[in-house]
Parts: sequence; C-alpha cells; structure tokens
Amino acid sequence: MRLSRYFLPILKENPREAEIVSHRLMLRAGMIRQQAAGSFSWLPLGKRVLDKVCQIIREEQDRAGALEILMPTIQSADLWIESGRYNDYGKEMLRIRDRQDRPMLYGPTNEEMVTDIFRAYVKSYKDLPLNLYHIQWKFRDEVRPRFGVMRSREFLMKDAYSFDLDYEGAKAAYNRMFVAYLRTFSRLGLKAIPMRADTGPIGGDLSHEFIILASTGESAVFCHKDFLDLPVPSADVDFSNDEEIAGIVEQWTKPYAATDEMHDEAAWAQVPEDKRLAARGIEVGHIFHFGTKYSKPMKATVMGPDGKEHFVSMGSYGIGPTRLAAAIIEASHDEAGIIWPEAVTPFEIALINMKAGDAECDRVCEQIYAALSASGREVLYDDTDQRPGAKFATADLIGLPWQVIVGPRGVAAGEVEVKSRATGERETLPIEAVANRFSVRR
Amino acid sequence: MRLSRYFLPILKENPREAEIVSHRLMLRAGMIRQQAAGSFSWLPLGKRVLDKVCQIIREEQDRAGALEILMPTIQSADLWIESGRYNDYGKEMLRIRDRQDRPMLYGPTNEEMVTDIFRAYVKSYKDLPLNLYHIQWKFRDEVRPRFGVMRSREFLMKDAYSFDLDYEGAKAAYNRMFVAYLRTFSRLGLKAIPMRADTGPIGGDLSHEFIILASTGESAVFCHKDFLDLPVPSADVDFSNDEEIAGIVEQWTKPYAATDEMHDEAAWAQVPEDKRLAARGIEVGHIFHFGTKYSKPMKATVMGPDGKEHFVSMGSYGIGPTRLAAAIIEASHDEAGIIWPEAVTPFEIALINMKAGDAECDRVCEQIYAALSASGREVLYDDTDQRPGAKFATADLIGLPWQVIVGPRGVAAGEVEVKSRATGERETLPIEAVANRFSVRR
Repeated sequence: MRLSRYFLPILKENPREAEIVSHRLMLRAGMIRQQAAGSFSWLPLGKRVLDKVCQIIREEQDRAGALEILMPTIQSADLWIESGRYNDYGKEMLRIRDRQDRPMLYGPTNEEMVTDIFRAYVKSYKDLPLNLYHIQWKFRDEVRPRFGVMRSREFLMKDAYSFDLDYEGAKAAYNRMFVAYLRTFSRLGLKAIPMRADTGPIGGDLSHEFIILASTGESAVFCHKDFLDLPVPSADVDFSNDEEIAGIVEQWTKPYAATDEMHDEAAWAQVPEDKRLAARGIEVGHIFHFGTKYSKPMKATVMGPDGKEHFVSMGSYGIGPTRLAAAIIEASHDEAGIIWPEAVTPFEIALINMKAGDAECDRVCEQIYAALSASGREVLYDDTDQRPGAKFATADLIGLPWQVIVGPRGVAAGEVEVKSRATGERETLPIEAVANRFSVRR
Repeated sequence: MRLSRYFLPILKENPREAEIVSHRLMLRAGMIRQQAAGSFSWLPLGKRVLDKVCQIIREEQDRAGALEILMPTIQSADLWIESGRYNDYGKEMLRIRDRQDRPMLYGPTNEEMVTDIFRAYVKSYKDLPLNLYHIQWKFRDEVRPRFGVMRSREFLMKDAYSFDLDYEGAKAAYNRMFVAYLRTFSRLGLKAIPMRADTGPIGGDLSHEFIILASTGESAVFCHKDFLDLPVPSADVDFSNDEEIAGIVEQWTKPYAATDEMHDEAAWAQVPEDKRLAARGIEVGHIFHFGTKYSKPMKATVMGPDGKEHFVSMGSYGIGPTRLAAAIIEASHDEAGIIWPEAVTPFEIALINMKAGDAECDRVCEQIYAALSASGREVLYDDTDQRPGAKFATADLIGLPWQVIVGPRGVAAGEVEVKSRATGERETLPIEAVANRFSVRR
C-alpha cells in the first residue's frame, strides 16, 4: 500500500481524553476514532489489526472443533423473559422497542439465542458434543465507558457455547476451550495466565479468566513465576484426545494464580518467596461452565443413551477482539509508539523513501516495493513528500516490525538500511539483498 | 469437514412461512434460522457462503482503491440532526435511548458518520480522491419484512463513500465503483445489469441499480439483449486510468436498460423487437452520486488548488451481502436444491460414503478425504450412517458443485463416481485418480 493513497490520520498531539497508553497510541496512530461515548470507528490501520486478531481466534476455535455461526445483534426480549434474565439484567442492557412496540434488545451476550438454536434442531446425544461460536458486535451500556476500546459500550466479542450430555462431557469441552485459549493468546504474541474466577451459584472450579500482565492493568494479580515458562501446546495438539487435553489443563492450573478478587493469602504464603509474582493484569478472555442454567428454564434437552431426556450441560467462552487489540499495545510499546507482534501487525514492513521525488530514491523504492509485494509481504510504502524525521516518527508510532530505509546517500552506495522496530537494531544491506532478506517469514 | 462433527440441520419439509425459493432452500439446507421478524442467524453452512461473498466484494473494493474501515452500528442522533435527516427519516429508523436518555439510533446507512470522519481529518485536495467503505450490520425497521434474508430488518451491507474535490473527480470515483461492481457480480457467478435509477432532487444521471435477472424478481425490468454478451472487465483493468474506466462505463450504459420505475416506452420502442428482453429482476447493488448533499450541512470542506475552501463532492455505493446470498440461490437452483457457483460454495466437494462402517468404503473415503484436503480443496465428508438416498438428497439440496460417491461395488472394482451438481453428469474414475481430478482449481 502506498501511503499517498492510504488513509492514515496521524495525530501529532496527545489526545487529552486518553487515560491509558493504548487509547492514546491508537488515536495517535490513526487506528480508531471515537464516535460517541464508548463507541469507535476502526480506521484502515486499526481494521487490519482487528481482522488479524479475529482470524487467529477463528483458526484456534476451528482447530478445537468449534463451528462458526453468526447470530443477529438485535434480539427479541421473549427469549430473555424465558430464561429469567430480562428483568435481572440491569441498565447495561440496551432495551429497544420497534415500530410495533415489541420489546427487543441489543445483545450483551447470546446464551439465550444459542440455546434456542440448539433446542430447535438437536434432539439426540449422538449429535454431541457441539460447540457453536460467533464473532459479533455486543452492546453494554456501561455507566462510565473509558480507556478507549478497552472498555467501550459497543464492542466485538467472540463467544462460544458448548453443549454436552453431562458434566463429564462439558468438562472435556471446557478443557478444549482452555487449550484453544492458550494457543490463541500465544499466537497473538501475548503471555496469558489462566486464573480461577468466581463461579457464583454454579459452584465448582470450571471458570477461568485469562490475564495478561501489564503495568497498566485494571486489577492486581498474584501468580507463581513458573507460569512464565510453561510450554504452550503446539499446533498438532490432539483435541480429540480428552486425556491429553486434560493433562495440559492440569499443568496450567497447578501453580498458584489468582486475581485480587479470588486471592487466598494462605495459599499465597506457601509459594516460595522468590517465585511470587505480584503484578497488574488485563483480562483478555473468560471461560465458564454453567451446566443447566439455561437449558433447564429453556427446556433444551437431548435423548441420552439411556433413552431418557437430559437437560444439556453448557459452557460459554468469551474473547473480546476489540479489547485485545488495545491489550496487545498495552503489553508491547515504548516511548516512540506501538511495537506490533508479527502475527497482528497491520503491515509487516514500512518502506521509507527519505527523498521522494529524487529519481534514484524513487526507482530503488519502487523496485523494492514491487519485489517485496510479489513475495507476499505486506508493505506500507511511505512515498509522501514529508521530511525524513516525520517519516521516521510515523513509522515508529505505527510500530510495524521492520523499516526499510532508502536515502540518497545509501542509494549512491548501492545500499539501504533495515531497522527492527522492537530492538532498534540496524543493518545495512545491498539493494538487491532486501527482497531475499524478507523472502522467508521469520 | 466431517458431517458427523458438523452442524447441518436439514429440514425435510418445506417451511410454510417461506414464500420464495431462496428462503425455502436456505431454511431447508440449514443455512439460516429465523430469530424474530426480519432477523436471522447464519448457521455454519450459511456463514461460509456469507464469508465468501464478503471476501469477493472486499477484494474488488480494494482493487478499485477503496479503503476498508469499520464504523459502529449504533450512532448518536446528533449527526443526523446536523444533516437534517433525523426528522425526515421515517419509522424505518430504529430509534434508541441509552441509560442517560441520549437519543441514538441503529444505523440504516452511514453517510453522516463517514462525513464526520472525513471532516475531522482531511483538509486538502491533495489527500483526495478518498473512498472509505465498511461491511457492517444495518437495521431498517420495515413494516413487513419478508422473503427471508432478501428483505430482512437486520442485514449486512457493504457501503462505500467517495470524496472528491469536484464533480469531475466524483464522476471518476463513481465510474471506478461501477466497474468494481461489474467485476464483483461476475465473480459471484451473477449476470448483473446496470440500470439507470432515480436521482431525485440531486439530478444528473449518476445513479445505477445493478439488477440480476430472476423469474422471482421483485420488479419488472426491460433491457437490450446485448447486455447478456457484454465483456466484463478483467482483473488487470487499470483503475488509475480514468479514461479506460469511463470507456467501460460507456459501453455498459449505452444499450437500453430500465426498471419499471424508470421505464421509457418511447426509448423501448426503438430497441429492435428481437433484442428486447422484458423480465423480472432483483436489485443487488446501488451506486449513487449525491454531490454536496451531506458535505454542505455538515461543513466538510477541503482546500482546493485555488486556495479556496470547497465542499467535497460525494457518492455512496451499496451492496447487501446477506441479500446477495439469497439472490444467488434465486438465480441458481433446481427442483432438488441449490446449485452453488464455485466462487461462493460453502464447500467444493461432497464426499459421500454410501456405506459408512464398511471397512473398505471407510478406508477409501479417508484416503480421498485426506488427499483432497491436503491439496487445499474444501470437502464436506458425509461419514454419517444415513441411507444413501438420504445422503444424495442432502448433497443435492446443499448444492456443492461436485459429489464424489464411494460405494461398496465401486470400491471392489477400484472405482468411485464423480457427479457434477450443475449438469448431473457422472464419470467413473479409478480411486487413485480422484485427487488428481481435483488437483487444479477449474
């Protein structure tokens, strides 16, 4: 993409309304624009990141056997009356009446609707296990939306829902999502630690929040340092092997880890002092087993192998892609701007023409741009007539992993410079060597 | 994908509520489920089609130089008050109040919001032309939603908005979208004919609806038969060449074509009788130049080369992907079910195991399934224990282009059968030859 034909509205000043670094950097890098309280447009650069985040989430949901659907944003109130949540859910639910005065709502979550889909079609245990997910906009009318897309009112959520004959099946389904989440966050370049979360009236221990460590995190967290070195399951993990999956979950739930809310001082005291990590964290995912909470009131049953009707045992599994885009920045930035992990960067390479209009610089840039694009690399070519200093600042701000810098002196010597955004390391390469340098994904 | 692990809720009976064939087939093939009046969930098979439709639209928007963004579904009423449309827009607009009693609405379209984005950042003609598009849910509270996703209340729309310094620029932008639409519909397997549409108070002739012919179409259309053979621009059409693009538009607007609404009996009479095509059609896209209709009240100006402020000249360009999925079925089906064009088919090949459980049939199916999957083909493997007749009916109903049929007799002879869904033609192949048969995309 040529920057001269792109829409990248960089802000020079720090926006006053932004309280946290991700919000500030997303506004400054022209990734998002606030449209109303807790409501954001995703501009081209931001949209590319969001798409990559969603794609990784999707691939890992699919790998774990979940099936993608797409439920509407607006729901009839009827289903929520049936589950008993219509009155319980507070003012965070955006309630709407249509032209016929029918009560509707903007879905804050989809347990009711997906249970309705399930009960309409699935009648036998033979059709289980089943896990349906979608990536769809949600609306929660927060009193005080803030922190940009980290806590907005309209936000994107991947929510998956599992259906099983009994608790054992539901637990296996829960474990599969647990492992899928480990892989998802790892691929996103994040170190996420699963922490026991409150199960409320459901009871049991099948509820985990996935927390990434960031000094700007919303909550205090306490965990064993061993988490930092636990191996993340590889792509060929066998999701059809319940034992293998359970083993991974066991490994990842053994060391102590708790948010503020669930912190247990006695257990914490047993962690060797040099292994204690007290930090701040950001919740990026939540998985939850809730059994028959919705299947009972909504009469979602299947015939079991015993010939009897059973209420299905369910769980739900959420990740917020819009929130994640911000969380990744919280975890990966410096004074100069964002530092994108390779997996979600909007483009891979910033090609900087230090003297656009200079015939030689233009020629070399065009040659490199064509060669890199032909080998499938995503290049943002800064062909504008800005000064080099402004171009470097923009490249650092938007945080693409690699900068290829083409200036008149280098070109005269047949060379260009390659800079790593993360380390700041620079190398000088012959012009012809640039395409090869990036020919293989690292 | 193994059917035994998929969620494909086929309906045996024709749903009574479905008035048109696409609605009937989408319900029967388990593509969609109605959740409320004019509101649908997309089940796994439907979601795959919708994704492919969106991806083709996206690629052609990008090719034509449009940039993808993503605006929120919920809008503040303020912008619509500014443009003057808040009161004009009737009951189709879903009006909402949040917990602070602020007036909001579910966007039926996005001219106001995108103009707001534009005016916030773009100040100079040097940053033009600009075309921003998004693919986002819209809500229009129709009095009588019907025909399934063809006319639903919540629907997906690709809406693009172009910004130019003057009418000449806007016309070039309009022409680019015109050509992008020709390519888009052609890639979707549709023959779409651009027809002059009403420009109302804007005047001029820059408004076209793209209509596909289908006997179940909502409106009568009249056109010259030459349209059926006009060449669709190839992928290497040069969108930066205004003259080339204008030439294509001229070619595609010269022969007579009009919807009922714009029909001109006098002009029609001049079409040679054997060249007249009076048929029914479905609108699948609409492009529209509206000049300064929004930029004036919303004060969206840029500095021109003359040093003066100019209100930008705008156009909007819509395609409904959810509607398109249905329109494609209207245009391509038979008694037995859907016939998917290759470009949007949910899977490419139905692999039918006529005797699941038979060791030899299973082995051959697994071998073919592995080989086809490894070569990147999308296979839906019917490994269930249904009778062959039911499997054939399902395969015909869901309409994948190819069926690979594995039965005990064939396997004993070392052969399988390949059937084309569209033509019904069958060929018998040695088992080892199947992977090769599909190794190259046709």
